[in-house]
Amino acid sequence: MKRIGIVGGTGYTGVELLRMLAIHPSVEVSCLTSRSEAGKTVASLYPWLSHYGSLSFEKPSIEMLAECDLVFYATPNKIAMNEVSALLDRSVRVIDLAADFRFSDVSLWESAYGGPHGAPLLIDEAVYGLPEKYRTEITRARLVGNPGCYPTASALALIPLVEAGVLSSPQVIIDGKSGASGAGRSARTDLIVAEASDNFHAYAAGGHRHAPEMTHQISKMGQEVLVTFVPHLLPMIRGIEVTAYVSTSLSLLDARELFRSRYRDEPSVGVAADDQHPETRWVRGSNRCVIGVYQQQSGQLIISSVIDNLIKGAAGQAIQNMNLMLGLNELEALPMNALSP
Amino acid sequence: MKRIGIVGGTGYTGVELLRMLAIHPSVEVSCLTSRSEAGKTVASLYPWLSHYGSLSFEKPSIEMLAECDLVFYATPNKIAMNEVSALLDRSVRVIDLAADFRFSDVSLWESAYGGPHGAPLLIDEAVYGLPEKYRTEITRARLVGNPGCYPTASALALIPLVEAGVLSSPQVIIDGKSGASGAGRSARTDLIVAEASDNFHAYAAGGHRHAPEMTHQISKMGQEVLVTFVPHLLPMIRGIEVTAYVSTSLSLLDARELFRSRYRDEPSVGVAADDQHPETRWVRGSNRCVIGVYQQQSGQLIISSVIDNLIKGAAGQAIQNMNLMLGLNELEALPMNALSP
Amino acid sequence: MKRIGIVGGTGYTGVELLRMLAIHPSVEVSCLTSRSEAGKTVASLYPWLSHYGSLSFEKPSIEMLAECDLVFYATPNKIAMNEVSALLDRSVRVIDLAADFRFSDVSLWESAYGGPHGAPLLIDEAVYGLPEKYRTEITRARLVGNPGCYPTASALALIPLVEAGVLSSPQVIIDGKSGASGAGRSARTDLIVAEASDNFHAYAAGGHRHAPEMTHQISKMGQEVLVTFVPHLLPMIRGIEVTAYVSTSLSLLDARELFRSRYRDEPSVGVAADDQHPETRWVRGSNRCVIGVYQQQSGQLIISSVIDNLIKGAAGQAIQNMNLMLGLNELEALPMNALSP
Amino acid sequence: MKRIGIVGGTGYTGVELLRMLAIHPSVEVSCLTSRSEAGKTVASLYPWLSHYGSLSFEKPSIEMLAECDLVFYATPNKIAMNEVSALLDRSVRVIDLAADFRFSDVSLWESAYGGPHGAPLLIDEAVYGLPEKYRTEITRARLVGNPGCYPTASALALIPLVEAGVLSSPQVIIDGKSGASGAGRSARTDLIVAEASDNFHAYAAGGHRHAPEMTHQISKMGQEVLVTFVPHLLPMIRGIEVTAYVSTSLSLLDARELFRSRYRDEPSVGVAADDQHPETRWVRGSNRCVIGVYQQQSGQLIISSVIDNLIKGAAGQAIQNMNLMLGLNELEALPMNALSP
Repeated sequence: MKRIGIVGGTGYTGVELLRMLAIHPSVEVSCLTSRSEAGKTVASLYPWLSHYGSLSFEKPSIEMLAECDLVFYATPNKIAMNEVSALLDRSVRVIDLAADFRFSDVSLWESAYGGPHGAPLLIDEAVYGLPEKYRTEITRARLVGNPGCYPTASALALIPLVEAGVLSSPQVIIDGKSGASGAGRSARTDLIVAEASDNFHAYAAGGHRHAPEMTHQISKMGQEVLVTFVPHLLPMIRGIEVTAYVSTSLSLLDARELFRSRYRDEPSVGVAADDQHPETRWVRGSNRCVIGVYQQQSGQLIISSVIDNLIKGAAGQAIQNMNLMLGLNELEALPMNALSP
Repeated sequence: MKRIGIVGGTGYTGVELLRMLAIHPSVEVSCLTSRSEAGKTVASLYPWLSHYGSLSFEKPSIEMLAECDLVFYATPNKIAMNEVSALLDRSVRVIDLAADFRFSDVSLWESAYGGPHGAPLLIDEAVYGLPEKYRTEITRARLVGNPGCYPTASALALIPLVEAGVLSSPQVIIDGKSGASGAGRSARTDLIVAEASDNFHAYAAGGHRHAPEMTHQISKMGQEVLVTFVPHLLPMIRGIEVTAYVSTSLSLLDARELFRSRYRDEPSVGVAADDQHPETRWVRGSNRCVIGVYQQQSGQLIISSVIDNLIKGAAGQAIQNMNLMLGLNELEALPMNALSP
Repeated sequence: MKRIGIVGGTGYTGVELLRMLAIHPSVEVSCLTSRSEAGKTVASLYPWLSHYGSLSFEKPSIEMLAECDLVFYATPNKIAMNEVSALLDRSVRVIDLAADFRFSDVSLWESAYGGPHGAPLLIDEAVYGLPEKYRTEITRARLVGNPGCYPTASALALIPLVEAGVLSSPQVIIDGKSGASGAGRSARTDLIVAEASDNFHAYAAGGHRHAPEMTHQISKMGQEVLVTFVPHLLPMIRGIEVTAYVSTSLSLLDARELFRSRYRDEPSVGVAADDQHPETRWVRGSNRCVIGVYQQQSGQLIISSVIDNLIKGAAGQAIQNMNLMLGLNELEALPMNALSP
Repeated sequence: MKRIGIVGGTGYTGVELLRMLAIHPSVEVSCLTSRSEAGKTVASLYPWLSHYGSLSFEKPSIEMLAECDLVFYATPNKIAMNEVSALLDRSVRVIDLAADFRFSDVSLWESAYGGPHGAPLLIDEAVYGLPEKYRTEITRARLVGNPGCYPTASALALIPLVEAGVLSSPQVIIDGKSGASGAGRSARTDLIVAEASDNFHAYAAGGHRHAPEMTHQISKMGQEVLVTFVPHLLPMIRGIEVTAYVSTSLSLLDARELFRSRYRDEPSVGVAADDQHPETRWVRGSNRCVIGVYQQQSGQLIISSVIDNLIKGAAGQAIQNMNLMLGLNELEALPMNALSP
């Protein structure tokens, strides 16, 4: 059994890691830390996670984490960057679910997240944890930066096109919509049911941190793109849908064939039937992405891509990366059938 | 008291007409027809409309409707077009809430809705019922084609730009999202709570009937546009948000000033503060549209526009048109404060 | 125009008072206070309340409030009790929407809410603001204690029975369910969409403050009752439903006739048709209560009662009381048709 | 690998059987029938069930089903009763998820469901599939009647009390609330989002078919009870909560100890901490029931019990029964951690 550590296991991504790893046959969560909940058991905080009899949260310490084979950082931004070096030095591999290692260019990261980066020398080594693009690199990686939720859905929507170099303009419009769990488990008035339920609105329409991540990472995957990205808050819990609008000379028929062919052997990505539109409930609770491709009379090609923001968009993709790094079955412990209805 | 008829008062737009007209001091619903519910009282079908003591649904007949001053058609498409001529001949004015009179070009209508139009000679006379653009024409109109819900939100989002002629490309992307009431009161499996709640998806991504209406009508308002439009279904009841992406050389500052100046005297349209994003709950239950304007590093100008699809997007706008046609206070009987939370 | 003051206008009940009073022809909100939001305009805080051009929140002061004819306290518990005496002395009438004046027995209040009461001498004078029971007293009252939301729905469900003295046991079970707006506009993690949406649970099953209010107030209305009350949190915004289980020797037919007869002339209370069950959406956005009466083979009589917790359960009932106190039409400014869908 | 048949795999319980059995290591779905969808693949109908490559729905036939080791009937009522005898004769074991075998008294069944029973001689042999009560009998059973969803939650809420014989009155009040998936996947207007979302109401308050099932089955488990049961429709997808009100001389302390002791070794039932209330999301997606016990000043003992209506209330419990019948690990393939948020 591989020994796994989770730093910051009290947010939604931490809880999802716990939930899915509970049935993993080859790993065990041996170290679970939380500054705020140290001393409490998993069972008392999360009565719905019945597997973890006596596992307790502990104060974070590098000594303890150093005994793990692999450590997940399910922490806010700018935590992992200050600790990961000490772990790598002791041969512990690390997956950061926050944004510290999502850029391979320090200055881009600094302009999006502010302040100096705590581990600029590691940025280059870190692998962007999108298995559908970097499977081999992930397998060998010591340090993986787990992609953001919107960038995951968006990159998978664009990879076939930019790899084939068929965009006729770098301008890409991405209209994103996310369930409220994307905002985390935080006591915010604007997120309470009476405010955010039966309601819908854009946010960060002037610029969201995931836009430079998309422009940067997707451009590295083939053709250069310039992403315009507007996220919106959905009155529901889980699920991201992005609708991408691109210009291409490809016919709809060829575009669909391009997507089907690119993803034929990808176990976590599906392409919807021509007469269907991907629905977020098709992937709720699963580590899958489903994509639909359409075209309108205006000539615009439209790609709709759905994921569960907490799974393929966060904890599930992190486990997928862990499985690759540890030489295990890539999908072990990952639910592939959605919970629907 | 002006005498008002409602044909097809059992769908959501019909019920909304009934609800709002109930407190109108200058009109009374004197004739209410429904083929399927003839003989039943409003009170028995809609226990939440307590104002209508004994008013009953009757079988539709031109004779009866001819005694009204103005008749609303809250029917499916292709009903009004076959009856309106007989009413106009008897000096009854008509507002059609369906799509029969939303195009001033028969061939466009026929390519979007199919089959021959029942009243091609009236299409030219009919006024597109958007008071913010055609207030004077509506005042004098015998026949008004009430705009679609998405087109209302979209036209209001673009009018200041196309009137000023500042779009640098005709390509306009409109990403629309609508609450489930937009699909009407119909027994469809895909609309039940267990399917459509906690769910989100695009529909008609290959082309929706509201796209040609937008391209046609917005182009007539100033600059020519070519609209790419993808609607999505929101897991909630009321509200439409459209996010429009346009190219312009206007600065953000100038664009915002353009919107504020254009809508300064419009009682049903507001422009959000610069640091806010319009929310559908800001307009839920009211006859208002609120618009926000943003710009990203890519240069794209972004306009977010929200309405209540059943009010400013349907029955409320129809009453606004009625008030104008009858020489009454334009906002009479129209709620202007939203129900929030 | 009567001058109205609102103390604490930033919670949901305060916002609802503002929304409804906006269209009242005989009163104006001349004084609006909030410690936390002093200096801000209504329009900046509540962009959906478009009526209040320049009205601003001010720091609360008795001097200012003393210029009003009537003041609403839309504050937390234990605020009004310390200020109301100064206002009554200056002939300002007061309606408290919190719990300070809902008991006519100080010791009951103290055991439910703790600590000494700030105005024990006024408790006896205060009228329990349920117009369907105390209309005459309210008309003359200087001080009204507006009933709680659950107690309003429950009292209206039991008044016909206790007045007629037909309960065969004092034991009354009340199973209550409330939309999330009942918990107020507060930044609580357990209320965010990701936690409280698609979720349901009981709370305070060992005893809730509204239980002694019900036992106390309903017992005063006729027969003595002993209420067992368990509230539950609904994954929605507005609406309360209570299901009451009582023992009676009355037949179902007689019970229904009793309810119909008792409420025949009550403009805010309806009795559902025999084959229907009251739905919260029948009263959403309106100042109405709808009641259904049923019986099972076990002999238990069952009463289901629905209100909008923010309107008939709070701000609407307060305005109904204000109208009575000021000699105005009891339903002025109160929406009586629900917003549905 | 045991061969499993599913008759009627297109409703929610059928889909849930498919979803969970997909990862069962010891059984395979070898036969899947649906009259309406014969010829279609699972993948085309349920794009979110990615495991079932080429499995197709077939026309139901006894010949085909006879090759299975065990057959689930996920059909409407009154289907299984006419077919099961032919299967039992060929040594195929059967679990009926409908109501045909939930009563051991034909006349009770007939008064609840109407018409003559198709297999009255089998009613006595059929075992009521509640493992927490009839584990041994289920292990040996040829025919299991899977309990209803409300009766499962209710029986588990009362078993400790009736087994111990501590109820001081047979009168038991059960106030039930169910997510909309309980009504099945049917095109009903009253279930669409625009009607049933942000809404709540009782139904069948005069008597629901699950009430006689509860009275009959719970009475057989210990003390005689007479159940008054009112179900309500929740504006959400999954989850049932029942609040039971009973009279007992037991102290709260003793009652809680009784529940903890009774369920200590039950893997699918948990008792909430004293200061918590069970939430439906604690069991969403899992085969668990969580129960809380409370008492009020009135003396009434209150039990709140939550399950996922489609899992422990239907398909999960059916698989639990299957595992027992086939001598497998009782919890195999059953998710025990809830999907939360």
